[in-house]
Amino acid sequence: MSFQEKLAQYAELTVRVGVNIQPGQELLIQTTTDTVEFTRLVVEKAYEAGAKQVHVAFSDPFVMRTHYELAPDAAFHEFPDWTVKQRDAIIDHKGAFLWIDAEDPDLFAGIPAKRLSDGQKSAGKALERYRQAVGSDKIAWSIVAIPSEKWAEKVFTDEQDQMEALWQAIFQTVRIGDGDAVSLWQEHIKNLEQRAAALNERRYRKLHYRAPGTDLTIGLPAGHMWMTGASRTPDNVPFIANMPTEEVYTVPAKLEVEGTVRNTKPLVYQGNIIDGFTLRFENGRIVEADAEVGQELLDELISADEGAAYLGEVALVPVESPISDSGILFYNTLFDENASNHLAIGDSYPTCLEGGTDLERDQLGEYGLNTSIVHEDFMIGSSEMDIDGITEDGKTEAIFRQGNWAF
Amino acid sequence: MSFQEKLAQYAELTVRVGVNIQPGQELLIQTTTDTVEFTRLVVEKAYEAGAKQVHVAFSDPFVMRTHYELAPDAAFHEFPDWTVKQRDAIIDHKGAFLWIDAEDPDLFAGIPAKRLSDGQKSAGKALERYRQAVGSDKIAWSIVAIPSEKWAEKVFTDEQDQMEALWQAIFQTVRIGDGDAVSLWQEHIKNLEQRAAALNERRYRKLHYRAPGTDLTIGLPAGHMWMTGASRTPDNVPFIANMPTEEVYTVPAKLEVEGTVRNTKPLVYQGNIIDGFTLRFENGRIVEADAEVGQELLDELISADEGAAYLGEVALVPVESPISDSGILFYNTLFDENASNHLAIGDSYPTCLEGGTDLERDQLGEYGLNTSIVHEDFMIGSSEMDIDGITEDGKTEAIFRQGNWAF
Repeated sequence: MSFQEKLAQYAELTVRVGVNIQPGQELLIQTTTDTVEFTRLVVEKAYEAGAKQVHVAFSDPFVMRTHYELAPDAAFHEFPDWTVKQRDAIIDHKGAFLWIDAEDPDLFAGIPAKRLSDGQKSAGKALERYRQAVGSDKIAWSIVAIPSEKWAEKVFTDEQDQMEALWQAIFQTVRIGDGDAVSLWQEHIKNLEQRAAALNERRYRKLHYRAPGTDLTIGLPAGHMWMTGASRTPDNVPFIANMPTEEVYTVPAKLEVEGTVRNTKPLVYQGNIIDGFTLRFENGRIVEADAEVGQELLDELISADEGAAYLGEVALVPVESPISDSGILFYNTLFDENASNHLAIGDSYPTCLEGGTDLERDQLGEYGLNTSIVHEDFMIGSSEMDIDGITEDGKTEAIFRQGNWAF
Repeated sequence: MSFQEKLAQYAELTVRVGVNIQPGQELLIQTTTDTVEFTRLVVEKAYEAGAKQVHVAFSDPFVMRTHYELAPDAAFHEFPDWTVKQRDAIIDHKGAFLWIDAEDPDLFAGIPAKRLSDGQKSAGKALERYRQAVGSDKIAWSIVAIPSEKWAEKVFTDEQDQMEALWQAIFQTVRIGDGDAVSLWQEHIKNLEQRAAALNERRYRKLHYRAPGTDLTIGLPAGHMWMTGASRTPDNVPFIANMPTEEVYTVPAKLEVEGTVRNTKPLVYQGNIIDGFTLRFENGRIVEADAEVGQELLDELISADEGAAYLGEVALVPVESPISDSGILFYNTLFDENASNHLAIGDSYPTCLEGGTDLERDQLGEYGLNTSIVHEDFMIGSSEMDIDGITEDGKTEAIFRQGNWAF
């Protein structure tokens, strides 16, 4: 399959599976001037799928940076109302939101933190309705990534054509190059949803992880729900909020984690590496943390606040999956978290608890859920990992054997 | 001066002289994804000049074309309200509008006319307040142009590096490359304004043009005003709506044009050339029109409606001016109309009549002004052209001698 054919399939996949555009629907694409060629393809595919209007809001990384560098302080305490109106219109019209992301990991390096946080606060406040609509799947939305030069440089230090290498890696992770990607995804999603449904039916009380350096038991709270990256709008239209997505995930019971776990892939935290680390838990809390690389950073992470010493997510990803197979560290959560069984230090998702989205944030603890200002995934999966589910009445059943699904 | 230095000067000129950004002001740049590099420079210069917020609305030519090709008919009968809100906010905040134009002359070739006109009508209606604010100089605005590949191809058919050639041509026309462009422009505008003031003081009753093939008398209506490209906001902040600008212009008395005029540069009408033509006027009306090239097109132009057989603009441009010196036909009115003394067939500008902007369109005829659906500039200047002004009491004074200002 030629590069152009793969690109066309990726655009098609984004439109038909990602946001899953419906005839007559409006689409707002938020992207940067670095993605023009791919965005044009997506626009074409969206109209072919029956979109009524495709709006593209291009921002420019250099313009954004210049704004943070040179605008007067007052500029960071306001937010243009028309941008709010734009998002509101898409929500009111039951449109869809698509982000086409070409990340520059160092875009805001050196910008005063106060400017960034003031800017983010103003935007966050103005766009609250929009964030809620997206966060609670009231409308269809999706994020896909394409290479930027800076990102490709970071991932493929030694390659000659870094952009080409990152493109091919992305194609592989989103199942492009091996037949009809849309059908492959439909099958993939069906598989993920069957896994989640099976786990939800079993209602395991605990998970038990065993691997070299790892012997860990994680309690699951009453009412926990296993979720996948496949979501549905209130009108029951399916969409995939992140592409790629490989995980089936839920919330741990904050105080019921016991034992030891060892990471298997580096954790990239604030642009730096933490690796070769072991965490020991007692009553859910991390009581020992030893890293071969990045000890200070690890200490900083787990003491960010009270919740940063507890777990917030449990996610299952088999070693036989495209991202894991690639063996690449992407320095990008959208990809790296889908490479391996992982846990997250910090905040948990209320969507993984029955009725959880109706609770206030400070009520979550009563149901066993952790809250924190951090949420950092770290990878623990390998082909030597076995995971058992332990039922309410103490029975043990195989969930993972040698890094792959056992059922 | 290096290319990068010239580019930086052009950006500086656009900001400091074109829209003339004031400290604390907002700027909305409307441009395309073809101009990213230059737009970034302009954004930087605008913040350096004290702008509070610089918003960039990028459209993409390919996305626009795809919309016109593939969107359902219904899409052309609506216009996004947030875009109206965006323009309104800039007007309400006394901001400035800047267009950075990289024209593709054939962008909409082959698109059904109905779609284009429906789209333009919907936009025109929704954006009425904005068009009025710009048209009547209620806010500062400016248009500048940079090369697009398609445009450069058309202008420099035989050049090897067409983009480079068009860039250098544009730099020359906007007085870049020969010292400090901002000072050169301040001097240039002062000159233009002095010319206009002198002509307004003289209150000529008629102009008399003489050149090979030309012997023409044009009456000027009572209350006519000579204008320049230099405008002022209601707060008296100067700005230049078009860059380049070389002309001093006013309205002719519709029924008082007598004699014969011969063009000196080709007229590009609907992408085609009309050249080597002579027009004979009686009582203001074109009664004979002979062209060596494009006779049919010329006939079509002057019979577009009743007003298309009369003149609507008289503009004075000396032969010693950067655009004229370049000898280039730009296929772009922003440039070509500033190359030479010219007249326009068709519609006239009410801004050139005292109190003219307060009149309804159908009242303009009572004051001697022509109205038409067309407004086509054609060039008549040369180094052999003399122009006299004739005063109310019949005195004759030299305005142009051998193609240049005589006073």
